[in-house]
Amino acid sequence: MNQLLLLSPEEAALRRGNLQSLMRAKGLDAMLVCDNANLFYLSGRVFAGYAYIPAEGDAVWLVRRPVELTGSNVCYIHKPENIPDVLLSQGLAAPDVLGLEFDIASYSMVTRLMGVFDGSRFENANGILRAARSVKTAVELSMLRESGVKHVEVYRHIPALYEPGMTDHELQVGIERVSRIEGCLGVFRISGQSMELFMGSVLTGKNADEPTPYDFAMGGAGLSPTLPVGACGEEIKEHSTVMVDMSGNFTGYMTDMTRVFSVGEISDEARKAHQCSIEICRMFEKEALPGVEASTLYRMAEDIVAERGLERYFMGHRQHASFIGHGIGIEVNELPVIAPRSRAVLEVGNVIALEPKFVIPGTGAVGIENTYHITADGPECLTPAPEEIISLV
Amino acid sequence: MNQLLLLSPEEAALRRGNLQSLMRAKGLDAMLVCDNANLFYLSGRVFAGYAYIPAEGDAVWLVRRPVELTGSNVCYIHKPENIPDVLLSQGLAAPDVLGLEFDIASYSMVTRLMGVFDGSRFENANGILRAARSVKTAVELSMLRESGVKHVEVYRHIPALYEPGMTDHELQVGIERVSRIEGCLGVFRISGQSMELFMGSVLTGKNADEPTPYDFAMGGAGLSPTLPVGACGEEIKEHSTVMVDMSGNFTGYMTDMTRVFSVGEISDEARKAHQCSIEICRMFEKEALPGVEASTLYRMAEDIVAERGLERYFMGHRQHASFIGHGIGIEVNELPVIAPRSRAVLEVGNVIALEPKFVIPGTGAVGIENTYHITADGPECLTPAPEEIISLV
Repeated sequence: MNQLLLLSPEEAALRRGNLQSLMRAKGLDAMLVCDNANLFYLSGRVFAGYAYIPAEGDAVWLVRRPVELTGSNVCYIHKPENIPDVLLSQGLAAPDVLGLEFDIASYSMVTRLMGVFDGSRFENANGILRAARSVKTAVELSMLRESGVKHVEVYRHIPALYEPGMTDHELQVGIERVSRIEGCLGVFRISGQSMELFMGSVLTGKNADEPTPYDFAMGGAGLSPTLPVGACGEEIKEHSTVMVDMSGNFTGYMTDMTRVFSVGEISDEARKAHQCSIEICRMFEKEALPGVEASTLYRMAEDIVAERGLERYFMGHRQHASFIGHGIGIEVNELPVIAPRSRAVLEVGNVIALEPKFVIPGTGAVGIENTYHITADGPECLTPAPEEIISLV
Repeated sequence: MNQLLLLSPEEAALRRGNLQSLMRAKGLDAMLVCDNANLFYLSGRVFAGYAYIPAEGDAVWLVRRPVELTGSNVCYIHKPENIPDVLLSQGLAAPDVLGLEFDIASYSMVTRLMGVFDGSRFENANGILRAARSVKTAVELSMLRESGVKHVEVYRHIPALYEPGMTDHELQVGIERVSRIEGCLGVFRISGQSMELFMGSVLTGKNADEPTPYDFAMGGAGLSPTLPVGACGEEIKEHSTVMVDMSGNFTGYMTDMTRVFSVGEISDEARKAHQCSIEICRMFEKEALPGVEASTLYRMAEDIVAERGLERYFMGHRQHASFIGHGIGIEVNELPVIAPRSRAVLEVGNVIALEPKFVIPGTGAVGIENTYHITADGPECLTPAPEEIISLV
């Protein structure tokens, strides 16, 4: 006996209910979900198949694999063409307006589903799913807190992992090992297909200034042009910083956390920029209240940077990132985004990774990243660990 | 100066030329490619943007990120709506028939591109790309061979990594570390979005019989229902097998290789099934010649299994996989597939991971996997390593 639904009935109803309110407001009669991250959100597990969510009432689970799943409304199908008959057998008529994951599912998959529901109109369901998932439930928050505790524990080991003469890659492999032993699942979920990363990034020296194709805050050449981001295999040199931004996915929900280490004396400019990042976090902890606009928070950070004359290093030097924070949970690129043109307004239950960072040419990257839960009283930090630059020698 | 094109001009022309022959045969005037794996194939690097391949002539590289790339036909764009003007400036008229990656790109992306090329007709380009990539060039083969050599080297360390009382997860983390130190890039590329895996799988005892949602040959419960595949954190017990199927991505091209280890005496049934897998590989090495149908090879394997009365354990026990081999290269699920209903006919230059495996309830999984290059004289094994079950104690 292997229950499909691994959430409590109350938790499943809460998540579904939030989605259904948004669906009714947008005029959707149902949505059909097939993305792994969204299925995990709805059921507490990843399976191959679909979740059919009507605007009112229970979900129907349309499963291809694994075998042997049981529970209320669990129906096995061979192919999507079976879905309408299965829904009819559950007493559900074809929807007039059906939401599909236009931004995630392939063109072939979406057009195939459109053929299956050939009397329906179709809307993009991704906006609703992203909006619902941007407000975490208490159960999701407890998983994020658990990831944060383990994430902080892993980072405590970093100074002991360093040995003089090491490359950035060797240090990263040491951190990966501790992280995996601590229970990190390894997998780094990013919505969409254009961004890829393996467990995180360790950046030192001039490699921190290498532009990357991906929409991450920082760059790095990587070990190969097939994955051009992060550590490049060069020795960690004296007078350099080492920025560690490794995955915190211990529960299916991940925290994001960056800390900086140094080898020997580093420049005053680098120290000043690091302090500026910490100050931006302090500002955020005071100002990031429900109802505040994300773009306002971005501008307040920019002002702090400008006062210190650090603009040309902020969020990169040869290439600049266009945001300083992002929602996080099952995936690393959730809502809201803290960016100049963001229209987001902070809500209770948002979880945001704030990463005001700088690239100091020659020295490396500095700045910290914390994951914050937005409460009515302000942000709760899920990654509480020392924020100063920690000397490795 | 950072050249976009990291392939030699001859190699780039060879890959493009193969695609262009297929495009002309299908009546495509051009294709627009945005998938990371396909961009890596065409240029030797991953970048954010598009490759525009006309049916005749040079590629045009339409780049969003990283900054500072140079070379012939490298054009920076902000958004896809800029593409037609850029193509005009390169002397290229709008195509009558444009190929797009229907099976990979999201519905939103494809419909946006259809709007950009509003006078064109559109075809699915994925079949052409998959067909071209299924026949490896000499340069690709040399990268696969390099991955194979390192992959074999990593597996040599496995007996020394085992300690009595270890869990499957702890052994896997040890292998991951050796693999990463040896230069494994970690990232495990799978085309499409429904399959996920972190670096590979270590299966022991009854966990080998846990069904998974994914279309892999073997299952396992995993550490979490968010990634239900592979090691589950249970102790490796006496009278069990340990099947190791870890990633061999050292060059952007990956080999696939499975070997089996044992702790204490294991059942005769398990030993017999393992020998059967080795015999199927021997059969494949003799029979897998250019011109042979993939479905014929599948049936020959099935016959060997049936002669030994092992059908109920073949390719799983509670849940069965529907293939015994798959193309491999930049991604793990390339063409051709060795399956009963496959229409593929083997060609010189195919690279195929053959994995005839068995799940013996109570004991674990047995069987091997090798990656083979199909030559005119038969398969060349890229993963030559001892194939017998290796005792860990």
